[in-house]
Amino acid sequence: MTRTFVLLSHAVTSPSFLLRDLPGSGRRMDVVCRGVQAALFLSHGVREDAVFLAVLHGPPRTPATLRFEGAALRKVHPDERVLAIFVQKALEALEGAERRARAPGAIPADDAAPSAWVGSTPGVSARRLGLAAALDELGGPVVCLREGGEDVRGSDLPEGGVYVFGDYLDPEPAWEAELASRRALAVSVGPRSLFASHAMVLVHNELDRRARARAGRG
Amino acid sequence: MTRTFVLLSHAVTSPSFLLRDLPGSGRRMDVVCRGVQAALFLSHGVREDAVFLAVLHGPPRTPATLRFEGAALRKVHPDERVLAIFVQKALEALEGAERRARAPGAIPADDAAPSAWVGSTPGVSARRLGLAAALDELGGPVVCLREGGEDVRGSDLPEGGVYVFGDYLDPEPAWEAELASRRALAVSVGPRSLFASHAMVLVHNELDRRARARAGRG
Repeated sequence: MTRTFVLLSHAVTSPSFLLRDLPGSGRRMDVVCRGVQAALFLSHGVREDAVFLAVLHGPPRTPATLRFEGAALRKVHPDERVLAIFVQKALEALEGAERRARAPGAIPADDAAPSAWVGSTPGVSARRLGLAAALDELGGPVVCLREGGEDVRGSDLPEGGVYVFGDYLDPEPAWEAELASRRALAVSVGPRSLFASHAMVLVHNELDRRARARAGRG
Repeated sequence: MTRTFVLLSHAVTSPSFLLRDLPGSGRRMDVVCRGVQAALFLSHGVREDAVFLAVLHGPPRTPATLRFEGAALRKVHPDERVLAIFVQKALEALEGAERRARAPGAIPADDAAPSAWVGSTPGVSARRLGLAAALDELGGPVVCLREGGEDVRGSDLPEGGVYVFGDYLDPEPAWEAELASRRALAVSVGPRSLFASHAMVLVHNELDRRARARAGRG
């Protein structure tokens, strides 16, 4: 089953952030890069059964959602700078598709937003999707990581779940309402308040252990 | 009790690596930076009870050991580039102390290596220590992270333990011999082969859970 991790991020939606200042110019784009890394990378390879989405809420044009698919990634190195370059390429491709949609003679689309994912490099794409539309498309049961949620170790985690993580700021009210309306299961990874990327590592580990236990019984 | 995490790294021992190419020019200095981040950072703060050491085995002059103390860190941001700048400052300070020790009129020290930690920025220091000397100085019981080790969740983890993690390459034979001579407990974090930084997150979580359980009983 595919594991999908969604990061709710306040990072910028333009590719013009600086690679030498991901936290400032990218409004914590470093958090997004570490999310890609925690969600998709193993020691000497990639999690081919994992998909990572980042719903970006920052300026200049919110929302934009990035998608990284483990099974399709090529030549991506796990360091933040290289991952940030892939983010830039994805946001550039999205802006380019929108410029073409607005060009004279183009068939006008609703608000000139491409109606499909715009691919940039293998396994990486972007689209003007907010959280609600992204969850609609993903379709699986939603689990959100939350301090005070039930302990992930004892939790009845669904197969093929969509795991939603926040960044360093409080979640947007619209995100909270969307998760509430879907009756998302709230789980906690432990006693301390952790980075989203660290929470992703802990969720993967719990699911890895359960997969091993199932395989042992099978 | 202090938690000490030691990364056995093949990264360079010179400060002249490039911030825009940590994996290549730094021989995976990005792994070291992510180690600092996983060992010491919480969502909105620092783990004041944690210390991180990286034993660097790369050129031009091995070994060098970096030390980051959570309780003393100031103005350190968790992104890789900023952490790499702190690594550079630490290695520059070490080289500077060695130049001064070799200067005419200086009291000659054994091989011109400073006999104490050379501080650079608050909470960060460096020294010409290899693994054996670093473990001698740390003094606590040693636990090494190893695929095939006993499961960390059921393991009898010592209070005040020194946890040793490898990087992306096989450990040096001298490191293996040193850990064997100390009868280090070998533990595993789960079924998949993970980055050192991800294994650190999992060890912290296990120790956080035990600390909470003890506090609940106390």
